[in-house]
Amino acid sequence: MLGEHVHGWEPLISRSPAQHAERGVDVRLRTEVVAIDTGRREVHWRERENGREGREGFDRLVYATGAGEFRPGLPGIDLGHFVYTPWQAQHLGEALPGVRHAVIVGGGYIGLEMAESLLRRGATVEMVARSPQVMRRTFDADMATHVQQALESDGVRVHCGTTLTGISAHGSRFIAHTEGATGPGEIETDLVVMGLGSRPRSGLAAQAGIPLGETGAVAVDHRQETRVEGIYAAGDCAEAWHRVQERWVNVHLGTIANKAGRVAGINLSGGEARFPGILGTAISRVCETEAARTGISETEAAALGIAVRSRQIESSTMAGYMPEATPMWVKLVAEEDSGRLLGGQIVGGPGAAKRIDTLAAAITGRLTVQDLIDMDLAYAPPFSGVWDPVQTAARVLV
Amino acid sequence: MLGEHVHGWEPLISRSPAQHAERGVDVRLRTEVVAIDTGRREVHWRERENGREGREGFDRLVYATGAGEFRPGLPGIDLGHFVYTPWQAQHLGEALPGVRHAVIVGGGYIGLEMAESLLRRGATVEMVARSPQVMRRTFDADMATHVQQALESDGVRVHCGTTLTGISAHGSRFIAHTEGATGPGEIETDLVVMGLGSRPRSGLAAQAGIPLGETGAVAVDHRQETRVEGIYAAGDCAEAWHRVQERWVNVHLGTIANKAGRVAGINLSGGEARFPGILGTAISRVCETEAARTGISETEAAALGIAVRSRQIESSTMAGYMPEATPMWVKLVAEEDSGRLLGGQIVGGPGAAKRIDTLAAAITGRLTVQDLIDMDLAYAPPFSGVWDPVQTAARVLV
Repeated sequence: MLGEHVHGWEPLISRSPAQHAERGVDVRLRTEVVAIDTGRREVHWRERENGREGREGFDRLVYATGAGEFRPGLPGIDLGHFVYTPWQAQHLGEALPGVRHAVIVGGGYIGLEMAESLLRRGATVEMVARSPQVMRRTFDADMATHVQQALESDGVRVHCGTTLTGISAHGSRFIAHTEGATGPGEIETDLVVMGLGSRPRSGLAAQAGIPLGETGAVAVDHRQETRVEGIYAAGDCAEAWHRVQERWVNVHLGTIANKAGRVAGINLSGGEARFPGILGTAISRVCETEAARTGISETEAAALGIAVRSRQIESSTMAGYMPEATPMWVKLVAEEDSGRLLGGQIVGGPGAAKRIDTLAAAITGRLTVQDLIDMDLAYAPPFSGVWDPVQTAARVLV
Repeated sequence: MLGEHVHGWEPLISRSPAQHAERGVDVRLRTEVVAIDTGRREVHWRERENGREGREGFDRLVYATGAGEFRPGLPGIDLGHFVYTPWQAQHLGEALPGVRHAVIVGGGYIGLEMAESLLRRGATVEMVARSPQVMRRTFDADMATHVQQALESDGVRVHCGTTLTGISAHGSRFIAHTEGATGPGEIETDLVVMGLGSRPRSGLAAQAGIPLGETGAVAVDHRQETRVEGIYAAGDCAEAWHRVQERWVNVHLGTIANKAGRVAGINLSGGEARFPGILGTAISRVCETEAARTGISETEAAALGIAVRSRQIESSTMAGYMPEATPMWVKLVAEEDSGRLLGGQIVGGPGAAKRIDTLAAAITGRLTVQDLIDMDLAYAPPFSGVWDPVQTAARVLV
């Protein structure tokens, strides 16, 4: 809604409390669960508005508390806008009129999407990122370069290797205080938007003795059941199995939450479902540039001690002679000995990034780079070259 | 180039004779091979312009004669424009100025793409298709309906179940004579464009004793070698293994020709390469509507005696609340007992059809419909719903 694509919240809400009620679901808003008694099979709740408390028994429980924004303890941090909840987004929306200059703190997905929204509204945007590249957690540096160049050509001034140290008020404006390679700095601005990622809300579970995993999120099995029988967890608050990393991770994406929630729902109501896990597939856009990734990056492979081969190629979103063709970069990561595809990253113009799904499907099928070359992918000049760019990347890698 | 995307031929030519020569390839244009002597390992050639003839010996030979348009023996057929070669396209291009009304004969890919080109130039277009649906050879009737509706809403008048019986001149215009359910008809027009498909050019091979397959195209193995040692064939003139149908087929697409040609080239030069086969993946567009297919259709499954389950769903190209979202239909075909995905068809607005590659990758990996549901596909509102439409289709099918 900040990007002016959508007006108000309503279109973003899948089901209202009334619609839930029609389906027999009793939704209690503004009611916080303050404790879970796993022995007595009860939750203790408190109504936020009047402080009224009570207990509710359960046979089975789903712990689906999601995640909250990461909020560093910096001076003046509350002067910045977080954009994690609809309420925060609304608050930011109210602050937007008159904003001519904005600072975005963080170079990840939230930072990218906020940059697009602010640019669309005509603001001048500066981005402050602590790491030496944007998209640090998900893209290799060589691929992130293309995203950064896109940001810059869209008019965003990107300060990598620069840390926010605090925010102060300055009349009706703000100053973002920073620390970079060249020492401390100050950026005067109308608005500071924080996009430093999110953390699982697993504290209540931990208090109740529901074990967390190494990631700090609630540990679950492939049925989404926690270590406490009959208590399930799903979504950003829970871990998920990474099918390439072969370990439990905690990735905050709606796709994962939806799939895991569905599996939890089937199992707790007596069915049998299994969530085999995730690839960490993600996609984003800043103006005309799209970026997506799946599986593991070269950086992640190195950290995990997996020997891989990896190459980046430049190609084109459609047949090169089409006037709408734009550059597109593809990077593939394959297991060194087997040639098995383990990951991919794509950056490019319209139509580039959703091709990541082809790679996600190939990884799911445990296919090799050679299988990708041989694959019968769709070609017509408005859609692709005769060899799809993901196949060109595979040919270069082989 | 007819669509005014591209000016002239040059951008469409990968390599000129001079560029080939630089790579040590002696290209002789306007020189026809009139016979192949497989015993003496010689080809007999004739220069088209001066009739000069000669022989050229070979150690290995690649038969890559491609395909030619299907030209039915109807009265006045030469008054129609075929659009198979660049020369034919150029001839048509010269005829286009002043065309205000055109008849397209054939409801397949060529017909669709010609419709777009003619609409872009402001012509009124009528399409005549013999079968009761458009896209008869590649799409099930229920999915072809969406393509036909798109054609009609773009202004094309579609006459299904109508056969061309001949073309006659009428002053500076033409009359397309037809035969339909309601009897014979006449359409007066400025231009008749023929899009009745293509046939492999395998006659020269057959004369030389190089065996053809049941499809009438040259029989090859997975190394692209014909039944005659050292003679390879690739492209539209040759058969290809269909990985779902599990039989040799003859499909005329640049993707297949490129892959098969590469395999032939590697093998004849002493390397080892194998072309595992095709899925018949194809994609097309008419104005804002995209259509793609892969694997087998429900109709093909019935003809092959394969028991399948199949369902069509309507979804949206991106999150439903995005203003650019357009309807998108997905049909999946899965093997009845195993649930293995065997085919898919997609019709929809911008961004819909290239998702067919996800299904092509899934079929290549021999994945099931359940695997597709579990798959970690990319989601962000400008790209997809939280469940990609191909997954929604899988959920409905399961």
